[in-house]
Amino acid sequence: MINKKLLFKKRPVGLPDEDTWELIDEKLPDLVDGQILIEQEYISLDPAMRGWMNEARSYIKPVEIGDVMRAGSVGKVIKKSGESKFNVGDYVSGWGGVQTHSISNGENLHKIDPEKSSLSSYLGVLGMPGMTAYFGILEEAKVKEGDTVLISGAAGAVGSIVGQIAKIKGCNVVGIAGGEKKCTFIKDDLGFDDAIDYKNGNVIKEIKSKCPKGIDVYFDNVGGEILDAALIFLRRNARIVLCGAISQYNNKDSIKGPKNYLSLLVNRASIKGMVVFDYAPKYEKAIDQISGWIQEGKILINEDIYEGIDNFRSVFLKLFNGKKMGKLILKVKT
Amino acid sequence: MINKKLLFKKRPVGLPDEDTWELIDEKLPDLVDGQILIEQEYISLDPAMRGWMNEARSYIKPVEIGDVMRAGSVGKVIKKSGESKFNVGDYVSGWGGVQTHSISNGENLHKIDPEKSSLSSYLGVLGMPGMTAYFGILEEAKVKEGDTVLISGAAGAVGSIVGQIAKIKGCNVVGIAGGEKKCTFIKDDLGFDDAIDYKNGNVIKEIKSKCPKGIDVYFDNVGGEILDAALIFLRRNARIVLCGAISQYNNKDSIKGPKNYLSLLVNRASIKGMVVFDYAPKYEKAIDQISGWIQEGKILINEDIYEGIDNFRSVFLKLFNGKKMGKLILKVKT
Repeated sequence: MINKKLLFKKRPVGLPDEDTWELIDEKLPDLVDGQILIEQEYISLDPAMRGWMNEARSYIKPVEIGDVMRAGSVGKVIKKSGESKFNVGDYVSGWGGVQTHSISNGENLHKIDPEKSSLSSYLGVLGMPGMTAYFGILEEAKVKEGDTVLISGAAGAVGSIVGQIAKIKGCNVVGIAGGEKKCTFIKDDLGFDDAIDYKNGNVIKEIKSKCPKGIDVYFDNVGGEILDAALIFLRRNARIVLCGAISQYNNKDSIKGPKNYLSLLVNRASIKGMVVFDYAPKYEKAIDQISGWIQEGKILINEDIYEGIDNFRSVFLKLFNGKKMGKLILKVKT
Repeated sequence: MINKKLLFKKRPVGLPDEDTWELIDEKLPDLVDGQILIEQEYISLDPAMRGWMNEARSYIKPVEIGDVMRAGSVGKVIKKSGESKFNVGDYVSGWGGVQTHSISNGENLHKIDPEKSSLSSYLGVLGMPGMTAYFGILEEAKVKEGDTVLISGAAGAVGSIVGQIAKIKGCNVVGIAGGEKKCTFIKDDLGFDDAIDYKNGNVIKEIKSKCPKGIDVYFDNVGGEILDAALIFLRRNARIVLCGAISQYNNKDSIKGPKNYLSLLVNRASIKGMVVFDYAPKYEKAIDQISGWIQEGKILINEDIYEGIDNFRSVFLKLFNGKKMGKLILKVKT
């Protein structure tokens, strides 16, 4: 049986180009005792993947040159050898990487229930982005009823869930997104109280007018100028959750630091970084809670699914060019 | 009776110049019922004063043009009219401003005991800098035994106390200061474990070598490049206490933001701003505790006292040119 797999070939400077990866075919080896073979159905595309491609100390080791490109995935067990807690026919989520098939000894693999929620949702609202949103807004930001919550990347995989959870908790939620379509979506479909289109108008003026009492929580997915604008309007004891900085990931020069950071001092405010993996022991509880909200119609699944492992690079680039809405996913089979 | 007082005349751009203040003589008015007259003995000079001179939203309202320059002070009650909780002969600390005499209705004034500690110490180790250090390192940073604590402005009024308290709590303490004299002082006299002279050598390399396990707490008084260097070496769950940014207060251009701030994300670390006034209800307890440490020889008083209200501006500039050590104080009478 043939596995198509995407090898990481060259560390990119700026956006990944044609030389970054190579897609090759290999004959799958025989399973050894305890292994299972998974036919992958969906592959997760996340901004964090860009960070894993850099050779720098981080919260996770870099992808090495020659490795299969690291990615979250969901798939079906189609073969097993000897004893395993998984059975043929089980659906699982894990770190299958960018390939059509993966072989696993079962470590870091979770059985998932496609009856309970769609397979792809285990990469989005019930996967890493959903967990990030859930623990970020509830445990890091500790939102309270009545808080004004500002979210950047608000139509994205994480931001769209952050805002919906903040609404459930009785907050006043304002989202920042690029373009009228995304702004209309987060207001009309996701129920945000207001939206700011950073591509149209002055973000500073817009925050001032749409958060007239100031900001209690800023959930930052983007960094750069939007972070600087948010800093201006912090209320006393405001909390900034630092989840990402997508505007900076493909910088060829050095990162732009937030020049308004002294607002933290004046307002006794904080910026704190979070890494979702720290919450792994609590994932199950969060998945139950979010599944409940989906069933009650309080959280809308927001996915953008493209097809074909051959298209990986062009789909990956949608993470950074604004041309997707919600969780970006690659369906393996075309 | 004549009062010499320093009026704030013009908001400075960058460092205050000759036109910023004017020293004038006025005849003191008669006291009205409930007022006391204080002969000021020592005036406090603090970096924060530079911020109060800007017309910007902050944690305290700006000094208005034409007002006596705001400053903390200690002095002796020499006259009273009618009922007051203070008596002639009492020593008091408060916000007397830059002048030889002040009139007060007793509000925000505290009786102090010159038998317990020197008068000037009520502006330093038992005053605002001492309170900032105490609550900053204990309640904001929540230092634990064994933590590596890095402190900028380490020979200054706040930094020198932060480091001494961190040593009492069993931390490994490294101070950053400008020049060999200050570095020797914080090691030999204050008992810091190590010192980094930022004027001599590469701060990044020095932090790497002197904090080999990384930094658990960074107490920031200076901002700028030193903050950026510290960010590189944060350990997981590190806490940065943002107390000041003296390198940035006289900037004519915009503030320099910390370009390495994404280290907060990777290391699940935080930056939090503090304003000492929030701890006012607990000052008394802190003063008792610090007085005890002074008596036990665990905290050394570190003051730099100059004389003469006529010299205010040149002494004030020592806050920013590195030419003082410890708490900067002006003795009113020459």
